[in-house]
Amino acid sequence: MRRVAVAGVGLAKVSEHWSLALKDLFAETALRALDDAGADGFDAVYVSSMCAAPLQGQLNLGAMMANALGGRGVAAMTVEAAEASGGVAFHEGVKAVASGYYDSVLVGGVEKMSDGLPGQVIAAISMSEDQEYTSYTGVTKVGLNALLHRHYMDNFGVGPEEVAMFAVASHENAVGSPHAQYPFKVSIDRVMASPMEADPVHMLECAGVGDGAAAVLLVPAEEAGGGVEVAATSVATDSYYLSGRKNILTFGAVREAASRAYRASGLSAADVDVLEVHDDTTISGVLSIEDLGFAEKGKGAGYVAEGNTGRGGEIPTNTFGGLKARGHPLGATGLYQIGEVALQLRGDAGPCQVEGAEVGMAECLGGLGSTCAVTMLRRP
Amino acid sequence: MRRVAVAGVGLAKVSEHWSLALKDLFAETALRALDDAGADGFDAVYVSSMCAAPLQGQLNLGAMMANALGGRGVAAMTVEAAEASGGVAFHEGVKAVASGYYDSVLVGGVEKMSDGLPGQVIAAISMSEDQEYTSYTGVTKVGLNALLHRHYMDNFGVGPEEVAMFAVASHENAVGSPHAQYPFKVSIDRVMASPMEADPVHMLECAGVGDGAAAVLLVPAEEAGGGVEVAATSVATDSYYLSGRKNILTFGAVREAASRAYRASGLSAADVDVLEVHDDTTISGVLSIEDLGFAEKGKGAGYVAEGNTGRGGEIPTNTFGGLKARGHPLGATGLYQIGEVALQLRGDAGPCQVEGAEVGMAECLGGLGSTCAVTMLRRP
Repeated sequence: MRRVAVAGVGLAKVSEHWSLALKDLFAETALRALDDAGADGFDAVYVSSMCAAPLQGQLNLGAMMANALGGRGVAAMTVEAAEASGGVAFHEGVKAVASGYYDSVLVGGVEKMSDGLPGQVIAAISMSEDQEYTSYTGVTKVGLNALLHRHYMDNFGVGPEEVAMFAVASHENAVGSPHAQYPFKVSIDRVMASPMEADPVHMLECAGVGDGAAAVLLVPAEEAGGGVEVAATSVATDSYYLSGRKNILTFGAVREAASRAYRASGLSAADVDVLEVHDDTTISGVLSIEDLGFAEKGKGAGYVAEGNTGRGGEIPTNTFGGLKARGHPLGATGLYQIGEVALQLRGDAGPCQVEGAEVGMAECLGGLGSTCAVTMLRRP
Repeated sequence: MRRVAVAGVGLAKVSEHWSLALKDLFAETALRALDDAGADGFDAVYVSSMCAAPLQGQLNLGAMMANALGGRGVAAMTVEAAEASGGVAFHEGVKAVASGYYDSVLVGGVEKMSDGLPGQVIAAISMSEDQEYTSYTGVTKVGLNALLHRHYMDNFGVGPEEVAMFAVASHENAVGSPHAQYPFKVSIDRVMASPMEADPVHMLECAGVGDGAAAVLLVPAEEAGGGVEVAATSVATDSYYLSGRKNILTFGAVREAASRAYRASGLSAADVDVLEVHDDTTISGVLSIEDLGFAEKGKGAGYVAEGNTGRGGEIPTNTFGGLKARGHPLGATGLYQIGEVALQLRGDAGPCQVEGAEVGMAECLGGLGSTCAVTMLRRP
């Protein structure tokens, strides 16, 4: 297999992009990634999107985006794994280059959530759980997270403020982030005073609704001329249902994907200098940090509350604000994370730069941890 | 790269499966493919489905199907490229094994069209064209095919019966097909007397609505012990819009995908013993036969009408009935085609067997030819 490098990155500001259609937002961002790489074309495009069918009534995004970019004839498709779509599409893109099938692969995610009415967005997100078993009960994604959140507090004797500090930490890191939706600090008092979405999850513990697109260009490492290398990419699944898990406070898919990534790269958690995790609510972020191996089970909330995930902390995490503050445009999120890690390792993270970062990791979740994609990048 | 083999095939009868949920239909069929291969597990599952989101409100099918099959921990995702989803998912599965990432990959397609009301099914299929440019005009997929059909007749001086003979030929081949939706002959008179769907396309020139699932298991060729080998797999795109094509009677994506497959395999159209093409309406089948290189441009309809695509003909085509008579469960169709070619090359095609078939080809289209996947298989 060939080694693969990230040759270019394009990240749109997460926002309400009323003036851009899905294909415009994608194309603008993808062209930025091609520009960044100094490339004038590509052999294949992998599009990750979760809710284009339910919100825009649009399928066949691969050919649509290939066409929008003028890439006549290229291979194209959509890869979907709910909110993990971006990380999973990256996994496919890496194999496409590693195998020698393609020499230049664009992987881009896009989501326009502003187009949907609030009820439509909630219904679309619920499509990542079984409609005949889970979603038809009316439980929302935040409602399911609330189960974990409550059980975590009860089980480990952790207070609500300690878990909520994840959001405070993410917002602190977002300050100066050029593409973040909410690049400002939020105090713990403000988080705790925000309305309850699903007890005990407050509104300011949840990622918001936004439009975004993120893209990377992948090429063989020997042609990248110093680009950031892919050290590992892995995808794993867990029981689709909370009821099928031995312990709902462990994300089995995260543990499995992380263990494969560590094995493939020959690296461990101790080698990671910069980390992006999937904090669609605070509890997902906390459990992710634990299951990736950065904190002991039950100690993740405290670890974050103590400041260990800040820019100058032990393991700088969600360095551009994470899902909470950078924003969470569903199918694009995994590629924001990977793009951000690449910028950190290149030293191009501007005000968000973590000094001397050499190894980075990104983790994204689909459904309530039923799918997990882990990516590890390193400076060559 | 490792050579890849199709070690097992599972095909559900295309029908109205009211008693099976999406995951049941998928799991039954996938287990049949595993059984056929004598395998008791797999490392990754690629699910192809086009309309699960609009018709069943279901995303994140990868993890759902992995769970339904008891494949805890395996990699999983959905691959979508409209009606070409099955062929494109196969492309991903082959790379996954060829690259060495996975040793045993299940690729399965599923679609339940019966769940939708007729208007919902038409709307879901229309999602493969641009909702902001094409579909919002109200034009249907059959309506777009009618444009090609009319222009073909005018341009090449071909009569409507000659084009419609494609449906007659497909139905003739379907007789005895164990998994075909409509395994019986239909006369040209009956086709021409059927209601007009979109002038000049008659109802009996169109694939029907049905539920189905098809799955194959891919393994490294050296471990397959005589399985059918993948000679080539390619995916290509064309302008997303008819208005962007120089000549709408040429499927550019088919030509490009075929030319890559011939180059990769070192084979030509003359080497192909059995062929499956994407006849969602008769004109798509005719144009496909031409653009794959089996008939000259403008001569495809006559070539089929003369009987060259029958079981004993020059190039046996749609040997289990094709989209018209075997059925066209959208995202599963490409994998029906590939499974059927594999059965032919193994000599397991029963009453549909083409004697001595050594090389086979399958071609499927997404949208109105905006995406094309071509697969070539051969006996080792």
